Amino acid sequence: MIIVLKREATKADADDIQAKIKALGLKPLYMPGTERTVLGAIGDERILGTLHLEGHPMIERITPILTSYKLVNREVHQADSIVHIDSIPVGGKRLAVIAGPCAVENREQMEKTARAVKNAGAHCLRGGAFKPRTSPYSFQGLGNKGLEILGKVATQFGLPAVTEVVEVADIDHVEKHAAAFQVGARNMQNFRLLTELGHRTKPVILKRGMAATVDDLLMAAEYIVSEGNPNVILCERGIRTFETATRNTLDLNAVPYLKQHTHLPVIVDPSHGTGIREYVLPMAKAAIACGADGLLVEVHHDPVSALSDGQQSLTPDDFVVFMKETARIAEAVGRKL
Amino acid sequence: MIIVLKREATKADADDIQAKIKALGLKPLYMPGTERTVLGAIGDERILGTLHLEGHPMIERITPILTSYKLVNREVHQADSIVHIDSIPVGGKRLAVIAGPCAVENREQMEKTARAVKNAGAHCLRGGAFKPRTSPYSFQGLGNKGLEILGKVATQFGLPAVTEVVEVADIDHVEKHAAAFQVGARNMQNFRLLTELGHRTKPVILKRGMAATVDDLLMAAEYIVSEGNPNVILCERGIRTFETATRNTLDLNAVPYLKQHTHLPVIVDPSHGTGIREYVLPMAKAAIACGADGLLVEVHHDPVSALSDGQQSLTPDDFVVFMKETARIAEAVGRKL
Amino acid sequence: MIIVLKREATKADADDIQAKIKALGLKPLYMPGTERTVLGAIGDERILGTLHLEGHPMIERITPILTSYKLVNREVHQADSIVHIDSIPVGGKRLAVIAGPCAVENREQMEKTARAVKNAGAHCLRGGAFKPRTSPYSFQGLGNKGLEILGKVATQFGLPAVTEVVEVADIDHVEKHAAAFQVGARNMQNFRLLTELGHRTKPVILKRGMAATVDDLLMAAEYIVSEGNPNVILCERGIRTFETATRNTLDLNAVPYLKQHTHLPVIVDPSHGTGIREYVLPMAKAAIACGADGLLVEVHHDPVSALSDGQQSLTPDDFVVFMKETARIAEAVGRKL
Amino acid sequence: MIIVLKREATKADADDIQAKIKALGLKPLYMPGTERTVLGAIGDERILGTLHLEGHPMIERITPILTSYKLVNREVHQADSIVHIDSIPVGGKRLAVIAGPCAVENREQMEKTARAVKNAGAHCLRGGAFKPRTSPYSFQGLGNKGLEILGKVATQFGLPAVTEVVEVADIDHVEKHAAAFQVGARNMQNFRLLTELGHRTKPVILKRGMAATVDDLLMAAEYIVSEGNPNVILCERGIRTFETATRNTLDLNAVPYLKQHTHLPVIVDPSHGTGIREYVLPMAKAAIACGADGLLVEVHHDPVSALSDGQQSLTPDDFVVFMKETARIAEAVGRKL
Repeated sequence: MIIVLKREATKADADDIQAKIKALGLKPLYMPGTERTVLGAIGDERILGTLHLEGHPMIERITPILTSYKLVNREVHQADSIVHIDSIPVGGKRLAVIAGPCAVENREQMEKTARAVKNAGAHCLRGGAFKPRTSPYSFQGLGNKGLEILGKVATQFGLPAVTEVVEVADIDHVEKHAAAFQVGARNMQNFRLLTELGHRTKPVILKRGMAATVDDLLMAAEYIVSEGNPNVILCERGIRTFETATRNTLDLNAVPYLKQHTHLPVIVDPSHGTGIREYVLPMAKAAIACGADGLLVEVHHDPVSALSDGQQSLTPDDFVVFMKETARIAEAVGRKL
Repeated sequence: MIIVLKREATKADADDIQAKIKALGLKPLYMPGTERTVLGAIGDERILGTLHLEGHPMIERITPILTSYKLVNREVHQADSIVHIDSIPVGGKRLAVIAGPCAVENREQMEKTARAVKNAGAHCLRGGAFKPRTSPYSFQGLGNKGLEILGKVATQFGLPAVTEVVEVADIDHVEKHAAAFQVGARNMQNFRLLTELGHRTKPVILKRGMAATVDDLLMAAEYIVSEGNPNVILCERGIRTFETATRNTLDLNAVPYLKQHTHLPVIVDPSHGTGIREYVLPMAKAAIACGADGLLVEVHHDPVSALSDGQQSLTPDDFVVFMKETARIAEAVGRKL
Repeated sequence: MIIVLKREATKADADDIQAKIKALGLKPLYMPGTERTVLGAIGDERILGTLHLEGHPMIERITPILTSYKLVNREVHQADSIVHIDSIPVGGKRLAVIAGPCAVENREQMEKTARAVKNAGAHCLRGGAFKPRTSPYSFQGLGNKGLEILGKVATQFGLPAVTEVVEVADIDHVEKHAAAFQVGARNMQNFRLLTELGHRTKPVILKRGMAATVDDLLMAAEYIVSEGNPNVILCERGIRTFETATRNTLDLNAVPYLKQHTHLPVIVDPSHGTGIREYVLPMAKAAIACGADGLLVEVHHDPVSALSDGQQSLTPDDFVVFMKETARIAEAVGRKL
Repeated sequence: MIIVLKREATKADADDIQAKIKALGLKPLYMPGTERTVLGAIGDERILGTLHLEGHPMIERITPILTSYKLVNREVHQADSIVHIDSIPVGGKRLAVIAGPCAVENREQMEKTARAVKNAGAHCLRGGAFKPRTSPYSFQGLGNKGLEILGKVATQFGLPAVTEVVEVADIDHVEKHAAAFQVGARNMQNFRLLTELGHRTKPVILKRGMAATVDDLLMAAEYIVSEGNPNVILCERGIRTFETATRNTLDLNAVPYLKQHTHLPVIVDPSHGTGIREYVLPMAKAAIACGADGLLVEVHHDPVSALSDGQQSLTPDDFVVFMKETARIAEAVGRKL
C-alpha cells in the first residue's frame, strides 16, 4: 500500500501514521520527497484495510499494490481451473456452448428449441424462468413453472440446464432443476445472493454488471469462492457506454485481461453483448479468437414470436451456421468446440 | 409506437404487421416513404408491448412515443407528491436533510453522531446495518444488531431512521426499526425487492444505479408504485463515467429532468456523488439550487476512525456549516431547510 | 513516481532500474515486499518522464505522485487568477455572464439578440462564425463574414465579443474581431491550436472535451500557459456518458475539483451541458452554487428560427428571468452578478 | 423524420408545422393519438434539416428515419470499396497489416523496425512525426524531420508509409512523404482538416474519436467523401469508458456494425485499443474474426527504449508470432493476410 500525504502534512503526521501501520504488525516505509512525503506499508493488504486510513485528513491518496482478490487470482493458482456443468467441462481445451431461449415460455417452445440446439451440437441448454425486466409491464417469466419445464426438457434431451437465480429464497428450487446457477448482470453485486451461492456446490455463471470493471467482477467472484464454492465461470456480456448503436458495448479486452489475472474460466455472451441478431456470430467468433472458454447464446425456434429478446435470438438455421463457423475459429486457435 | 421497416420490406410485410396491430384493438398507420416505409400504432403502449415486434426480420427500428412509466408520470398526476418519513414531509416547500454515518458501528458512535446532526438541524437519521461492499474482506455492517442500535438511537433523539434494505428476507426486520427503507444503487434493479417493498406502506428512498438512466430509475419506481406503495423518494447519487477524479459523476441534470417528468420527490446524495469531503457542501448547494427536495449526507462524529466512507464523511463541525450554507441557497430559491 | 515491479522481477532488475533513476540525478528508493518489490523515484517528474519506463518488461505499474500540470496548479500559485476579457474580470467576486446565439446568422439577428442580452445585464456577447458540426450537411457558420458582423455588433452595444476559433490559420482574423478566443470541446486537444494561442495575449476560454477528464483539461490549459499566455478560462460544458435524456452530462463535480486544483477561473455552459431550454436556468443556478466564476449561455432573439441549437437557446424573456434568478444564488454564496 | 408533438400542442400547431414541411416540397403526415400527436415528413432528410424544428416550443422529440450519411452508406453502394495505399489494397479478400513504431525517433530506429516488419510480412509502415500528447512536457515528435526519415526508410524497404497529419498547414508536406494520411482520434472531428483532406486523392485512415459513436465516425467520413476523396479507411481504436484496466475499451461491435452500414473498409488498432502488449495479439485475432479488413499495430525494435507507447509496442519477435497467428484466423474466415 502506497500512501501519498498531503503537501501540508508534517513529519509528526507521518510518524503517527507509521506507528499505526507498525501496530498492526506490518512494515512501514518512509519516503520524504521535495513536494510530498510518501509512505509505504508492506504486508497483507487485507489487514491494512482495517486501518481505514481513507478518512485521514493528512492523506491525499492511497494506492494498493496488490489486488484484493486472493483466491481467484492466478498468482496463487497458476493452472486453469476447469469447472464442470454436470459432465461438461468449461475452461479446458474444449469450448462450451450454452444455448437456448432468453425465457422459458412453454413446453413446446423449449422442446423445439432444445432439439434444434442439441442437433447442432450445443453442450448445455439455457432458459430463464425469472426474468428481471426494466419495466413492470414486460413479461416477467414463468417462475417455478418455468423451472420445471426447463428441467424436464433438459433431461429429455440430455443437456445440462443453466438458468438465472435472482433471489436467495429461490436458490433451493433452482438447484433442483438446473445444473448451473446463472447470476445476471443486475445481480453481480447482490452480495447476499453471492454469499449464499458460495455455500452450494453447483457451478455459478457470474455475468459482469453493466457498470462493473473487470476487477469488480473478480471481487464478486471472490465472494462466492471465499464462502466455499470454487466453481465459478465468469461471463463478459457487454457494458454500458455512450454508444447506442448496439445494446451494450461488448468489452472483449476483458477476455485476455481475465485470462491473465484469474484461473477461472471465462465465457462470452454475444447475444446481450450486441443485442442484434446479425452481430451475434461475428462477435462469437471474435470471443473465441481472443481466448474465451465458451459462449452463452440465445436461440429461439421462432424469434418473431419470442416473448423477450427476439431481436437478438438466432433461429435454428442461424445456429447451425453459428456452430460450424465458430468451430473453425476454435481450430485456428488450437481448441475444439 | 413508430415502426421503421427495413428497406427490403414489401407492402405485404407492412400489411401483415398492420393486421397484428389491428388485432389488438389498436389503430395502425401507414406511411410509405421514398426509402423506407414507416408504420405507426396508436393506443396503450403497454398493450403494444405484447406484440413483441422486436424480433421481426423486416423491422429495422421501433421507437415508443410514450414513456413506459404511467403511475409515476407527472402527466397523469400534475401536483408534486409529498412523501412523509414519519412526520417529516419530503417534496414540498420545506427541504429534508437526512444525515448520519455510512455504517452503524456501535451505540456510542451513533449517539454522538445523532446528537451532532440533531443539534445542527437535520430531519432524519441515516445509518447502514447491511453494507454492500465490493470486497468480501471489507466491513459488511452489524446486521440486525446494527438495526436495533439505529432504531434505539433514532427514538432517543426524535429523528426518524432511514436505513438500507438489501434483501426481501430482511424487510420485516428493517420495517420494525426504521421509518423509511433505502434501496441502494446496486439494488435499483433488484425487482423482487422492489415488488415486495411495493406491498408495504413505509416510504422507499430509491437510489439511482451506477449505470441506470433517469428513465430506468423511473421504471424502477414504477415497480414499487404499481404494487401499491405510492411513497417513493428518488435519489440521485452519481453515475459511473470515465472520470475518476471523483468517486462518481453526480448527474444534477437528472434533478430538473426528474422534476419535469415525475411528481415524486427527488433528493440528492452529494457524499456518494463526489466521494470527497471537500466537495460535499458545494454539490449540496448545487443540488438545492437546481431543484432538489432534500439531501442525504454522510456525517460521522470522527471520520478518521470510520469503518467505511471516512473520506467522504463530514465532521460535526463541517455539518454545522453545511446546514447554514445550504439554508441560504434554499432561501434564494424560495424554499426552507 | 511509484514503480511496482512484476512478481517475477529479480533484485538485479530492481538494481538496473534504480541505476537509471540515479543517472538522471534523481533519488531512487527501494521497498522490497513479500509479493512485490516497489521502487520510488523522487524529484521532478518531468525529468522522470524522459526515462520512458512504461515499456520495461519487468514493470507492472507506474503511478505518478505529482500532477503533470505545473503552471496552472494552485500549489504554485495559491491566489485566484483573474482573467480579463477586455474590461470584464473573470475569476473574482463578480460573476461574468457571456450570452448570445450559438451561431452568427445575420446582422439583424445579432443586433436583436445583443440588445436583449445587454439590457438584461450580460457582460460579454457570444456568437459562432465557424461552427464545427457533426454532419457536413448542417449549417457551418458564416465564416469571416460572421466574424465581422459579430465584431461590429459587439462594438455597437459595448459588449466584448467571444467566438470560437477552430484552426491556426484563423487566429489572426479572430483576434481582430473578438476580445476572447473560445476553444470548443472538439478542439480541446488540438495541441497545435493551443500552442499557437499560447503565443497570443487575448484570453482563451477552453472548453472541456466530451471524453476529457478534468486532469486532461488542466493539461490542455498547461499547453497554452507554458507557451506564454496566462489568460486561460476553463469551461465545463458536459461530458458524454450513457445517459441520453440530456444532450450531455454536465459534470458539476468538476467545478469544486478545478477550483481546488487550479488558480484559473472556471465557468460553466449549461446550454450545451443540458441541450434542453428548460434545464438551462436550474443548471446555471447549480453552477453558481457550487462555485463557478461565470456562465456561457445561448440566447437567441427567436429560437424557433435559429439555424443551430434552437432547442437549447433561451428567449430574451427567458434571459431576463435567468439574470434575476442567478443573481439571487450569487448573492447567497457571497458573490455578485 | 418523425415529429412527436408535446401533449399541450393544438391542432393549429400541427397544421402550422405541416405547412412548413409542405413549403419545402416534402410530404407531411398527420397521426393524432390519444395522448400525443405525431407528425411525419417524407423526403430528403437533408432538406428537412433546414427546417430547424428542434427549437420549436410545441415539439417534444424529433427522430430521423434515415441516416445522415449518404455517400458512405452501403445502401447506395452495395459492393465493398477497396481503397489502395499505394499498391496495397484494403477492403478485399486480402487483409492489410500496417506496422511500425508509435513515433519516428531516428533513422536507425526506423530502419531496424522497418526491416523487422517487412521480413515478417507487413504491408505498410507506420510512424508518427507529429505526436499529439496529453502533456506539453512529453515528446512531441520530430516534425518535418521525422516525415523525411519515414519517407526515406519506407522507400528503402518498399513499404508504403502511413503517418498522422494534425493540421491543414502540414498536409502538403505529409502528402510528399507518405502514401496515406492518418487522422488521429483527437482530430476525428477536426472538420477543417477533414474537408481539406477531401480535396486530395491519397487515402485517409480515419480513426474513431474516444467519445465518438460509430455514426459520428461515419459522418466524419462523409465530410471527406463529400468533398471529393472517396479513399477513406475507417479505424476502430477503442473508446473511453469507465473501465481503466485497459487504456481504452476496444469496441469490436463496431466492426460488424460498420461493415453492415458502409462500403468503406474497416481496420482495427489493437495497440491503442488495449494499451498493453500482451493483449495486442489476442485482440488482433478477434478483430479479424469479426470481419476487420486490416490491422494497424505498433512495433518497435526495442520497446524498452521507445520514446512513446513502449508498453503497448510489440518486439520484432512478438511480431513474427503476430503475423503467423493472425494469418491462421484470416484463413478460418476465408481470407488471407
